[in-house]
Amino acid sequence: MTLKGVALLGSTGSIGTSALRVLSRHRDRFQVVALTANSNSELLAEQVEEFHPRYVGLVERDGSATKWKSGPECLIEAATSEGADIVINAVVGAAGLDATLAALDAGKRVALANKETLVIAGELVQGARKRGGGELIPVDSEHSAILQCIGARPGSDIKRIILTASGGPFRDWGATRLESATVEDALRHPTWRMGKKVTIDSATLANKALEVIEAHFLFGIPYDRIEVVVHPQSVVHSFVEFVDGSVLAQLSAPTMELPILYALTYPERLDDSGVTRFDPVAMSPMTFEAADRDRFPALALGIDAGRKGGAAPAVFNASNECAVAGFLAGKIKFTDIPRAISSTLDELGGLAGKTKIELLSADSAARRHVQERFGC
Amino acid sequence: MTLKGVALLGSTGSIGTSALRVLSRHRDRFQVVALTANSNSELLAEQVEEFHPRYVGLVERDGSATKWKSGPECLIEAATSEGADIVINAVVGAAGLDATLAALDAGKRVALANKETLVIAGELVQGARKRGGGELIPVDSEHSAILQCIGARPGSDIKRIILTASGGPFRDWGATRLESATVEDALRHPTWRMGKKVTIDSATLANKALEVIEAHFLFGIPYDRIEVVVHPQSVVHSFVEFVDGSVLAQLSAPTMELPILYALTYPERLDDSGVTRFDPVAMSPMTFEAADRDRFPALALGIDAGRKGGAAPAVFNASNECAVAGFLAGKIKFTDIPRAISSTLDELGGLAGKTKIELLSADSAARRHVQERFGC
Repeated sequence: MTLKGVALLGSTGSIGTSALRVLSRHRDRFQVVALTANSNSELLAEQVEEFHPRYVGLVERDGSATKWKSGPECLIEAATSEGADIVINAVVGAAGLDATLAALDAGKRVALANKETLVIAGELVQGARKRGGGELIPVDSEHSAILQCIGARPGSDIKRIILTASGGPFRDWGATRLESATVEDALRHPTWRMGKKVTIDSATLANKALEVIEAHFLFGIPYDRIEVVVHPQSVVHSFVEFVDGSVLAQLSAPTMELPILYALTYPERLDDSGVTRFDPVAMSPMTFEAADRDRFPALALGIDAGRKGGAAPAVFNASNECAVAGFLAGKIKFTDIPRAISSTLDELGGLAGKTKIELLSADSAARRHVQERFGC
Repeated sequence: MTLKGVALLGSTGSIGTSALRVLSRHRDRFQVVALTANSNSELLAEQVEEFHPRYVGLVERDGSATKWKSGPECLIEAATSEGADIVINAVVGAAGLDATLAALDAGKRVALANKETLVIAGELVQGARKRGGGELIPVDSEHSAILQCIGARPGSDIKRIILTASGGPFRDWGATRLESATVEDALRHPTWRMGKKVTIDSATLANKALEVIEAHFLFGIPYDRIEVVVHPQSVVHSFVEFVDGSVLAQLSAPTMELPILYALTYPERLDDSGVTRFDPVAMSPMTFEAADRDRFPALALGIDAGRKGGAAPAVFNASNECAVAGFLAGKIKFTDIPRAISSTLDELGGLAGKTKIELLSADSAARRHVQERFGC
C-alpha cells in the first residue's frame, strides 16, 4: 500500500498534537511530509525529530537562525508541497484561509479544522474546491458526525441537521453572574480540552454559530434547516434528520482523534485503538436542552450574520476573534464579547463580500472597530 | 413512475394495519396486489374494499363461502402472486417461514416482520435469498436501525452491534414480584403498542434474544459482537460501532411505520409525514442500563441457543411460543415461561437442524415437550 503524504499546518496546537498522535499510530498508511507551527519552535523541533518531514515552517520569525522556512507564506508552501496528498489545516483564525484555497486549487484533500476558513469565505472556498477538484473534509467533531450520518446518501434525503453544543462552562449561570465571569472560569470547559480561543467561543456559543455557518457551506444546507441543541455530556456529536422522519446520530467519547482519523481515511474506516470504548450505560443519561439565546446572544448574532451573507460572517468572525483576544488579555468583560460583536455587525454587517479583497478588508475593518470602541 | 406491487401477509395484525396506513399515504409509489389475514375476515373485507388487491387469502377456513382463497397455502400463493415486487411478511410465528422462502426463491424483496423465519431457519433463508437473488429487509425497528446505520459501508467496518431493549413493563420489578405478574401486567408495555405475543416476549426479553439471532443472520455478525442494552424510552433503536471506535445510532419516536416505509423504499428514503417530529429536548433524558439476565433468563437462554446453532434456535422459539400461549391462556405463571424454555432446551437443544424437515420436527417436539411438562 502506498503511503499517503500528510501536510499538517498548526502542528503544535491542540488539534495538531492530536493529529500527530493519530498519525503515529498509522505510520503504515500515512507519512508526515510537512509541518508548520505558529511560534512554538521548541515543540516543533521535537516533532521534526520524530516525523522527519521534508518541509518545516514557522509562521512567526523568531530571529534565531534555523534551517526552517519562516514567515506566513510557509503555510501555503507546506499546503502545496510535493507529496502532500492530504492537508490538515489546524491553523487558528483567518490566517488559515490562503492555505486552504491553495490546497483545494491544487486538487488536494483538505482536512479542515480551521472553521474560520469557511465562515469568512465559504463561497470562495467552495469555488476553489470545484475548480481544483480537491476535497473538503471537516475535522470538527460535529461536522464529522454529520458527514458520517449522511454517508453515501444524496443531499435531497436530508430534512434537518441538529448540531449539538456542550453548553460550555456557563450553561447554568444566570445573566447577572455572567457579567463577572473570569478568564479562568471561561477556560474551565466541562467536556472538551481545546485551545483557548475555541474554549472561550464554546462559553459564548459563538463557536456554535461558526459551526452553523460551516455546516451551511460544507453540506449546502439552508440555515432554516440547521438547528442547535445543548447536550452537556458531549457524547452525541450531532443529528441528521432525513425526509422520512428517521434520525441518525454519531456518538463517541469526546476526542478529536476520531474526526481527525476519519478525515484522513474517509470514506473508509481504519481499525484504531485511540477512542475510549463506547459504553452507553456509563454514558447514561444523555440529556438535551434548548440553547438560551438571551444569555448567549453570540449564537443568534452569528447565525443571523450567516443568513445575511456577504461580508457579515467575516465581520462576525473578526469581531469575535478580536473581542476574545481582548477578554483573554483582561481588557473587556466576558459579556462584552457579544456586545462587541453586535456593535460591529450593526456598523459593518452590510459590507460587500464577494471577493477575497472585500472579505479581508471587512475583516480588518471589524478588528479596527472592536479595537477603537472596546479597547481590545 | 411504475407502481411497485406489494403483497401483505398478515394484514389485520398490528404490523399489517400499520403497513396499510403507510401504503395508503404512498399510493403514487405502491400498489397493494395481495392481502392475507389469519382469521379476522371482517377487517380483511374492509381492507379489500379499500385497496382492491387482486389476490385475497384467509388462513383459517371459517366455513362461510367467500370469493377468497382459504387455508395455509394462501400465504405462499400471495407471496409469489403476479405483480408482487415486495412481500411484507407480518405473519406471527413459524407459520411465516414457507412464504419467506418462496418469495426469496422467486427473487422478490421480503420486508420481514416475521422474525421467527430467521430464528428457526436462518441458514435456509439465506440460502434461498442467494439462490433466488431476492432481498431480505428487516421491518423490526432495531434491525432497520442497524441497516440504516450501516448504510453502504462494508461489513468489515463493523466492530459491534448494540441492540436496544425497552426493558418491558417489568424492568423495575423484583424477582419475587415477577412470580405473581398477571397477563394484564405483562401486556402493559411502556412504549410500544404491539400484538400480544411480541408484547409478552418484550416482558420476558425473549424478544431481544430472538432479535439477536435475527441480527446474526441478517447482517452476518458473530454473536460475540452483538450486545443488548436496556433503553426505557425506546428512542434510540440501536447502535452500530465501527472499527475506528465511532458509533452511529438511529432514533425516532417509537413507531413501526418508519421501518415499514424504509423496508419498502430502501436504500432510498421517501418524504413522509407519518413519524412524530424528532425533538431531542422533549425526548430527554435518554437513559441506558444493563439488561438483568438473572430476572430475565430468557435473554441468555435464547442467545445461547443461537450460539449453539442446529435446531436449538428453533427449539427456543417453539418452546417460547408455546409457553407464551400457555401464559396468555392462564395455564402457567409468567416466570414459568423461561422455565419451560430452559427445560425444553435441556431436553431437545442438541437436535440436528440442517434441513427444513429436521427444523420443523424439532419445532413440533419442543411444543409437545412444553405441553406435556407444563400443561400449556
